[in-house]
This record gives sequence, C-alpha cells and structure tokens, in this order.
Amino acid sequence: MVKTPHLKVMPLGGMNEIGKNMTAYQYENDIIVVDAGLAFPDDDMLGIDIVIPDITFLKKNQDKIRGLVYTHGHEDHIGATPYVLKQLSDLQLYGSRLTMGLIENKLKEHKGLGKHKKNVVKAGDVVQLGAFEVEFIHVSHSIPDAFSLAIKTPVGTVIQTGDFKIDFTPIDGLMTDLPRFAQLGSEGVLALFADSTNVERPGFTMSERTVGETFEEIFHHSEGRIIVASFSSNVHRVQQIINSAMANGRKVAFAGRSMINVSTVSLELGYLNVDDDTLIDLKDIDRYPDNEITIITTGSQGEPMSGLSRMATNEHRQVEIRQGDLVVLSSSPIPGNEKSVTRIINLLYEKGANVIYNELADVHTSGHACEGELKLIHALVKPKFFVPFHGEYNHLRRHAQMAEEMGIPNENIFIMRTGDTLEFSRIHAKFGKPVPSGNVMIDGLGVGDVGNVVLRDRKHLAEDGLMIVVVAIRKDTGEMINAPDIISRGFVYVRESEELMNGARDTITATLNKSIAQNVRDWTGLKSSIRDALRSFLYEKTRRSPMILPVIIEV
Amino acid sequence: MVKTPHLKVMPLGGMNEIGKNMTAYQYENDIIVVDAGLAFPDDDMLGIDIVIPDITFLKKNQDKIRGLVYTHGHEDHIGATPYVLKQLSDLQLYGSRLTMGLIENKLKEHKGLGKHKKNVVKAGDVVQLGAFEVEFIHVSHSIPDAFSLAIKTPVGTVIQTGDFKIDFTPIDGLMTDLPRFAQLGSEGVLALFADSTNVERPGFTMSERTVGETFEEIFHHSEGRIIVASFSSNVHRVQQIINSAMANGRKVAFAGRSMINVSTVSLELGYLNVDDDTLIDLKDIDRYPDNEITIITTGSQGEPMSGLSRMATNEHRQVEIRQGDLVVLSSSPIPGNEKSVTRIINLLYEKGANVIYNELADVHTSGHACEGELKLIHALVKPKFFVPFHGEYNHLRRHAQMAEEMGIPNENIFIMRTGDTLEFSRIHAKFGKPVPSGNVMIDGLGVGDVGNVVLRDRKHLAEDGLMIVVVAIRKDTGEMINAPDIISRGFVYVRESEELMNGARDTITATLNKSIAQNVRDWTGLKSSIRDALRSFLYEKTRRSPMILPVIIEV
Repeated sequence: MVKTPHLKVMPLGGMNEIGKNMTAYQYENDIIVVDAGLAFPDDDMLGIDIVIPDITFLKKNQDKIRGLVYTHGHEDHIGATPYVLKQLSDLQLYGSRLTMGLIENKLKEHKGLGKHKKNVVKAGDVVQLGAFEVEFIHVSHSIPDAFSLAIKTPVGTVIQTGDFKIDFTPIDGLMTDLPRFAQLGSEGVLALFADSTNVERPGFTMSERTVGETFEEIFHHSEGRIIVASFSSNVHRVQQIINSAMANGRKVAFAGRSMINVSTVSLELGYLNVDDDTLIDLKDIDRYPDNEITIITTGSQGEPMSGLSRMATNEHRQVEIRQGDLVVLSSSPIPGNEKSVTRIINLLYEKGANVIYNELADVHTSGHACEGELKLIHALVKPKFFVPFHGEYNHLRRHAQMAEEMGIPNENIFIMRTGDTLEFSRIHAKFGKPVPSGNVMIDGLGVGDVGNVVLRDRKHLAEDGLMIVVVAIRKDTGEMINAPDIISRGFVYVRESEELMNGARDTITATLNKSIAQNVRDWTGLKSSIRDALRSFLYEKTRRSPMILPVIIEV
Repeated sequence: MVKTPHLKVMPLGGMNEIGKNMTAYQYENDIIVVDAGLAFPDDDMLGIDIVIPDITFLKKNQDKIRGLVYTHGHEDHIGATPYVLKQLSDLQLYGSRLTMGLIENKLKEHKGLGKHKKNVVKAGDVVQLGAFEVEFIHVSHSIPDAFSLAIKTPVGTVIQTGDFKIDFTPIDGLMTDLPRFAQLGSEGVLALFADSTNVERPGFTMSERTVGETFEEIFHHSEGRIIVASFSSNVHRVQQIINSAMANGRKVAFAGRSMINVSTVSLELGYLNVDDDTLIDLKDIDRYPDNEITIITTGSQGEPMSGLSRMATNEHRQVEIRQGDLVVLSSSPIPGNEKSVTRIINLLYEKGANVIYNELADVHTSGHACEGELKLIHALVKPKFFVPFHGEYNHLRRHAQMAEEMGIPNENIFIMRTGDTLEFSRIHAKFGKPVPSGNVMIDGLGVGDVGNVVLRDRKHLAEDGLMIVVVAIRKDTGEMINAPDIISRGFVYVRESEELMNGARDTITATLNKSIAQNVRDWTGLKSSIRDALRSFLYEKTRRSPMILPVIIEV
C-alpha cells in the first residue's frame, strides 16, 4: 500500500482553551508555525507569571521548520516568542510592520536572539515556505495590521482567520478584505479555521467609530481632568482618544509601562498620530489646568500594579485621583477580572471621581466577530471542512452548530483540542496521532521548572501554612539533644497560640521518646511518625492541616 | 447643656461591602441587633473559610442587648449566628419560621448554645424590645418568609428593608406588603435603610412565576434525565422545579449537602410540597428510565466540591453526567464566580450533556429590587432621611443619586461604611463616633487566629514557596557539624535543579565560614546574614524570592 502524502494541522496551543495560540502545519518535510502566544496563568497556578505552549514537537523537527508566521501583535499570539526563539535556531519570522515592531521591542529584554531573521510583510503579500504558499489578508481586529492567512498546500487551501472582526467603518479606512475571502471561496477552500470567541453574541460588533463618537461627546462635556484606561495595543482606540483630546484643546500624557511602550512603537512606526504640542510628559501635567489634561493609561482590567490602580490607591508617583476627575474604563472585563474591575470602580468613586464604563456608555467594542460576521465569512469562504478555533469548548461547540446549520455536513466539522493532529487529503480529513502539548509555566527566569508537585505544595502552603520541627539526635545513643524546635509560618499567630504550640511540642516529644525507648534508628520512619502524630493533633485542635516538615539532625 | 437622647444606628457589617450583614440600633440603654451574617473570603484571604463581623461593640454592651432580629434566612444574614451566640449570653432571637428553622439546623453542629431563646414571629407581628417596637413586614425575596422591619423608636420610625423585591405574582401568593409600607409612609418615617444591590438595573425584576413557565417548557420537551442546579435556599424555585417534574411524570431526587439540608427543613416546615411517590433517594435513580428522572442539586456557581461539579468530574458516587442529560443552571454567576461557572458549563458540554443557563433562557430571576421597585418603595415610604444599604460603593452612590432625584435633600442622605455610627434626633441626623468593626476570619476551628501577618506569609509561600536551611553548630568551637541541610517546598523541582541547590549550599557555607572565622556567636545576626546572602543568590539565578527560614541548632 502506498501512503499518500497529506497535510497535518497541529494546534500546539489555543484550541479549546484561551491564549497561547500556536499552530503547526506539516506537509511531508515542511513545517510552518502560525503564532507563538502566551496565556495568563489560571487561578490555581500560584506564583506563575505566564504560560507558554510545549514546543517539544518543534524542537524535534527543527530542520523542517520553514517559517514562523504571525497573524497579529497581541500577547496571546506573540508573547511566547522569546522562549520559542531561545529553543529553536535560525528561524524565519514573518509578520506585519506593527507585529514585528512589537516583537522587536519585546526581544530587547532578551539577549542572543539576533540569528533569527525578521521579515515584514504587508496585506496581499505571498511568501513561499517549502510546500506552503502563505498569503496575508487584511482583517480588522482590536490591534491594527492584523492578518488572516490563506495557506495554499498541495492538498488545497486552508484559511486560518486569526482573531478578526468586520468593521464596515474602520478608523484606518482599511476594511476586512471580504472580496479576497470571496475570491478564495470561489476558487475552492479545503478547510476554514475560524475565530469562535464571540460566536454566542448575535449580530455584528459595534464599529470602533461609534466608540470615537462617544469619546467626542464625553470630552466635549467635561471640565476636569480626563483619565482613560484602555488596552495599550488597541492603537485605534488610543488614536481616537487623542483625536478627541486635540479637538477639545487638551494635552495627552501616557501612563503605565505597556501603554508607554506600545505607544512609543506605534508613534515611531506611524500607526499613531499626534500633534507635537499635544503630547506631554506625565510629570508635567500639573503645569496645565485640569480641563487641558488627558491621561491615557493601563489598568482597565483593575490589574493591581497598573497605572490606574496605582493612581486610585495613592501609589502612583505623578497622578492621584481626586474630586472632579473623570475616569473612563474603555474596555470590558475579561472573564475572571470582573471583581477587580468593580473594585477599581469603587475606589475611584470613593476618591470623588466620576467613572464611565462599558455598561454606562459605548466606550468599548470587541475585537472579535459576532455570529453575523462569522456567518458572512462562512458564506464567502464555503469551506469543505470546518474547524472552530480560538475559544473554550462552549464556543467551539456553538460555532460547529452554526457551521452545520449553514450546510457543512457534520462529519466535515472537527472540534479539536490542543495537541490533536488533523490530517487532510484533497477529499478526506481525520484525526491522526496527537503531538506532545501542554502548559509550560514560567516563574521568574524559570521555564518549566515549576510543575504540578511544586504547585500542589504552593496550594497547600497557601491554605494552611507550615510547621517545621527540628530535632537534634545523638548518633551514638539515639537521644534527643534538646527539646524539639518548632517554627510555623502562615498557620496561626504563634504568640496567641501558646497552648497549641505547647501541645504540639508535647506530641512530638512523646513520639520521640517512644522511638528512643524502642531504639529506632530509621530516621525516615521517625519523621513520618512525627508527621502523623502532629497532623492528628493539629487537625483535632484546629481543623487545619499545615504542611509538616520534620528535620532530624544527627550529631 | 442638656444632652438629648438620640438613636444610634451602627452597621457592624454589610455596609459598603457585600455580606456579613449586621446592624445595631441603640437608644440610651437599649440595643437591638438586626441579622448576624457571614461573608465569603476575598481572593487574598488565602485558606480562610468564612468571614464574620467584629462584635467587640456588642460584647462590651451585652447587658443592653434586648434582642437579635433576623430579616431572612440567607447565610449572609444568619451565617455568623453560632459564633455570635458563643460570644454573647442569653440572647432573645426573633425570626420567621423558616429563618428560625434554618438557624436551628445550623446550630445542630455547635454545642452549648441552648441558653439563647428562639422566638418565631410572623408577618404583622410586633415585638417590644426595650425602647424599640419592631414590626415584621412581609416581603418577597429569593427565600420564602422574608421580612422588612419597621422599627419604632422614641425619635421616629426607621424602616430597614432587608433584602427584598416586589413580585406581583409570587409563587406563594404573598406579595410584598406594599399597603403597609404606604401606611407607615403616611404616618411618617424618620429614616429608610434600603437594599441597593440591583439599583443599577432599570425596571422591575422578572417574576419568579416566569421562571416556572420556562421550566414547564423545558420539562415538557425533554427526554433524558434533567439535572437542575440552583441555590438550596431558593425554596420557591425548588418548588417550581418539583411542580414541573410532577406534571411531567418525573421523580425528584436531591443531591448536594446544603440542598438536602435545606429541602429537609423546608419539607418539615411545609414550605415545600411534593407527592410522596415523587421524592426518591439519589441512590435509586437508576431504577427508573431517564425520562422519569429529575435531580435537584447544588453547584450552580461552579463550586468545586458541589454536587454538580462532582457529577461533571466523575467524583460523584451516584451520578455521572452522560450523553443525553439536560443540565439547567438556574442561577446567574455571583461576581467573582464567572470563570468557575464557565468551566462547569464546558465540562458538562464535553461530557455530552445539553446545558441551559441564564443567558439562554429565563431560568433565573434575581431576589433584589431593581430601580423601578426601589422607586416605588421610596414613593410609598417618603422618608425624611435615607441611607442606601446592602451594596458596594457604586451601588450606594447610585441609590443615593436616585433618592435625591426623587426629592430627598442631599444633606438628608448618608452613605455609610461598616463601623460608622449615624445619630438621629427627631429632626436631625449626623455621623457620630465610629464603633470597632472589621473582618474576623474563620479558618477551621480558629476564630480570628489568622490575621494579616499569617495571610501575608501564606501569600508569600503561595507565590514563591520556601527554603529551609538547617545548620548544626558546636557550642564550644562555633564550628559547623556537617554541611548545611536544605529543604525546599513550592519553589523548584529539586531533582532538576541540582546546580541551583549546590550554589545555594555554597552560598550558605561561605557565609557560615566567614562568621566562624570572625568567631561570631550572635545566631540572630548569623541567620539574617544567611537569609540575605541566599535571597540575593536565588533572586539572581531565578528572579524569585522564596521564604527563607534558617534554623541553627547549637549542640
């Protein structure tokens, strides 16, 4: 039997989960990779800074990788880049000017990654990467210069939408390239991999232009300082805030590390335009009257260390929120951040500021296509096979249902998970052998050195603290040298728990005495006896189970 | 100057915060307390089970307390009762039959609280408690048998709404007693303390009856098992689910500890009615075909240990979710629980169940009055003074604005915080001296033995883990007996970090050798030298700062 070559598509992240987007396409000896994103840690990943995809598969197949292609410059699509570049050599990177600018900026903090070649592409460009011909198609999203990809392979064309929406009146005048989707559709598309984030929302997303009109209205009627918190990468949003400021005779100052970083890159590359005399330094804001001040900052998700949070808690060096300020949260809470956002709104109100947020006015719109837009793309592309992408299971499932309602046979729709392999011939598609995948956790400089055991210990310590028992034992006689030393942290206020601590010491001493009487020399066994006795004692007295660490020193 | 007696109102919890509702009213030597609720811990209260109010003020004034009065039986109004009863003696408790039934049930787990006298009251009853005449007014809420209180005091009548809404078609036929509010209003009300939870929502809450109609529709069209998760205390909701089950020939089984507890109490007291042959035990569900099964369970907030969560993760002994099941989440996510709820929905879908939740159908309605209902109450009660109650700052502020728009002068509206005192004469109101207040954290059996230091340690341990260094030193010579022992938990995988551990050991040894050379005998100083050296070393290598605990044993 002759084995026909086929296309393999392997999501290494971002499928049936949110974040760390990365997909590998393989045809025989050629591999291309789309995106290299990070995810933010789940609540149970204590102390973890960020999460990146497991790239074991790519490391094993390094010699086959023809390119790393980016759809756009959001962290969940570019954030793993430094870690990926460190583990792979001589990659060719392809992305839009803004995407590559943000990646360059990110790589500044990391050394020795210069060997990789960075290529700037623009909408309409086609690059040949081994067996793959990759075309970049302009789409609207909540960051400028975003692409869908049309990947021509020997078995047919695959379209991966990336994150996108359709804005009929975009700020930069560049609409999602619907004619190109239509053209590819009429030429025949093997498979569509499409953004599912907002599939549960009916209709179409509100235009970014409407948000601009709201800002114009707000600026026109305000007399105090205006402080707007938004996502630093939403450059069009930032531009519209700047436009409203300029139209109303206000200066603009940026605050918050990532807002300053991304704005600087956007200004340099010409994505952001502002009059020379409008932009001022944050430290100079007090030189102007309140009605001439606009501050654009981070913190729209209530993040504790962000610009806005620090302003609201008196921890910001240059700005403190005061009576008369107007604060606009130009965002909506990302799931999981609802409480932090409410907290910051309450803090701002308590400081005497007025606050405008998503529920009160049209100060935000999503970057992801709603159901109507998705249907439009499906109608234009008319793919043979469909894979819902970017979303949790409920989104993927809903998107699959939608595709079926639009006429794709159920057996041609595949709900995948990260690590799955989907194999395509010209006429068939089926699941193949999975590839290694998972969460690589980054904590400080450590990449993957924190795993489940460490996390389990952190959780245990977080909930009940610990108790350390130190006993010195004479090697010759097996007798204790002095009373056992007890140290506890995160368990109880030791000073107010004298009785408990005495009881603990008595429990340990009794266990030790028994062991000495029996002339035990098995320290491992003795440690576990101490642990068991102490655990029972503490649980009975407190209904808590601190981590118990017995240490025996033989002298 | 003669000091005129006045009324003091002191929220000990629940004002400008969510949960642990408790308010003290004092007139000269008489005090009454309204509610004794708990709060659930914030995200930064690691390992804490529940939070209760600080009742220092009540302990100091025990002899003056004439009664503890309950508005209704929700945990945030009754949950601190066992802890309050333990600290105060010979209290008179007053509440509705259901409220007192739930309190009795709660007290079963606690011993020695029999001295307190429990009094059942019904709507319309008036009890004289010292200088206070307390009248119980029937209101609708998401638990039956809830009251607003009209408290007649020597300086005038105060109305505290408790949690309430207006349902024009309530399940039990008992409407919020609007005529009584109107009557009190025309007699003159000094002050209104009113529920602010839903002030941001315009209009009126949907009737509970509409939810019943949705259930009827769902049950009528379903062929597999139906599993409904809801709040155990929402007895009317549970009744409507039972009604739909009975009307469609289905049995009903309860699952989840609190669902079983509360249903048992409600059945005993006659708040819940079910045919004898409808109710079955959960262990018997497999004796019936799928289309005759209804399971009513806890877990509508995605709580990890709840009935529904365990069913979805194969950890439930009797029920496992399978293809064909219909799961209804009859609730909406409480702020902070959005991610857990989404997680459970995804798990259920992945198991092949169909899932109906709040966003897809009218399977839930709130228990709190929306803006329209609040306006109606204001219009009937026409208070001289107004205090927005039950809510965070944004709710209180909005409710205050609403009251002002309805004609109450700004200077007669007070936004309070827990611990504030508001003093009333017949014609004036002003802030008085605050009383002690705050969060008393309960962890296992410990009440208040976990404070900020312990929580700070837990947070540190949670984020970076710990490293213990044990050194045995000879008393006479000051020399080390053996190489320092290092134990780490929650920091790195020790087996994969040999180099790091060796470096740590070298760092410690170098510090010790220096100290030995200098003949140091100050162990506290030596410990802090070890801590500093090790902290620098570890931070440089890992950018993490585990808790470092040096232990020196003198032999």
